[in-house]
Amino acid sequence: MTRYRLTLEYDGTPFVGWQRQANGPSVQQALEEAVTAFCGERAGVMGAGRTDAGVHALGQAAHVDIARKTDAETVRNALNFHLRPAPVIVLDAVPVGDDFHARFSATGRRYRYRILNRRAMPALERNRVWWLQVPLDAVAMHEAAQRLVGHHDFSTFRATVCQAKSPVKTLDRLDVMRHGDEISVEAAARSFLHHQVRNLVGTLKLVGEGKWSADDVARALEARDRVAGGPTAPAEGLYLIDVAYASA
Amino acid sequence: MTRYRLTLEYDGTPFVGWQRQANGPSVQQALEEAVTAFCGERAGVMGAGRTDAGVHALGQAAHVDIARKTDAETVRNALNFHLRPAPVIVLDAVPVGDDFHARFSATGRRYRYRILNRRAMPALERNRVWWLQVPLDAVAMHEAAQRLVGHHDFSTFRATVCQAKSPVKTLDRLDVMRHGDEISVEAAARSFLHHQVRNLVGTLKLVGEGKWSADDVARALEARDRVAGGPTAPAEGLYLIDVAYASA
Repeated sequence: MTRYRLTLEYDGTPFVGWQRQANGPSVQQALEEAVTAFCGERAGVMGAGRTDAGVHALGQAAHVDIARKTDAETVRNALNFHLRPAPVIVLDAVPVGDDFHARFSATGRRYRYRILNRRAMPALERNRVWWLQVPLDAVAMHEAAQRLVGHHDFSTFRATVCQAKSPVKTLDRLDVMRHGDEISVEAAARSFLHHQVRNLVGTLKLVGEGKWSADDVARALEARDRVAGGPTAPAEGLYLIDVAYASA
Repeated sequence: MTRYRLTLEYDGTPFVGWQRQANGPSVQQALEEAVTAFCGERAGVMGAGRTDAGVHALGQAAHVDIARKTDAETVRNALNFHLRPAPVIVLDAVPVGDDFHARFSATGRRYRYRILNRRAMPALERNRVWWLQVPLDAVAMHEAAQRLVGHHDFSTFRATVCQAKSPVKTLDRLDVMRHGDEISVEAAARSFLHHQVRNLVGTLKLVGEGKWSADDVARALEARDRVAGGPTAPAEGLYLIDVAYASA
């Protein structure tokens, strides 16, 4: 048996999310069925994080154990062959030790949130961005975001269903940048709470609109209460960019 | 009657192309039907260029005459309302003089061609890029491209069905840039021959693969014969970025 670490790209639009669910197709199920089609084995595919319905990935990580004697290139090519036409692609497969765990070995996660900030709806980026018509002040959003960086109790930005043991996390980076009509928010941390990025973005949007100041954001954080935070930004603008490991 | 210049974004995937055709939905037809739905008028929508089936636009230009008394903002919003759910968006509508013609008044056109250059198929950029697995040398492509810039007889890069009076055009810019896995080719000229950008890209791909040198490209141009050029790159990687006018 060999354990493989997979790096994955997917379009989250047609999926109920990463995790297998009874109510529709999931990315995990698509991968597990591809493994079975490839080698006849029923093997669980364990992801680094459970992306929600509609959330995309440019670099999700996962691991899977395969008993059949094969090699990493064949694993990647065979899974990609059997995944079609689902919009899930194995970018890379590498053999790792049995102690590697996609979720528990991860040392960092990076997300990007894309906002299309213009009057007209997206035609090409439909389901890929949060479309906001009100002009947003990205500089003010970035400044307010810096009040959230660091080691904090993030209860204000945590989904009520979140199963994490502690609401205390270290947010390493939260950068807001404008490129023409598009605003991107990049967030990096060892790990995130459920909906944390989307709740942070929904709050920064209030700053971009001029409704909230950076001080309001700091007060919301200090309140340690979900009701003190802004609304949850929609899933379609969120991308899991990268999962880091100490070594592989 | 007021003439409006429209700036358009569209996803070319579901269309037979810009131009109205009997065999399927076109961007032009979608717009003309939206005009009729908005004001009850049957008005022709004239585009700056006829993009092929599958070709996208971030900034196509068109004009239309509307008899109903209205204003530019209403034209834009009403057309966008009636265009849904087709992936065509009016980014902007501005009133112009009766002598304005989207095609004949244009002083410049800019296209981008996107190549995804990696082993794995695209998941998120499906139908939006030309996927090429062989590693391409973008620097060599850019150097070869400079041999094509300028005032030339572009018969080698002209579709046999092209209706232009002359194959002589001035190519102002042909830049090849790599950003990670993606190579983009940007082309600018007053006007282009039918399939010219796709034929230029198909030829530069041979350079990127190391099969052709810059001298081979120069010789192909001098041959003034379509059979001397490389293959036609697929439509899905091509974007009409911008159409320029002397004034509006």
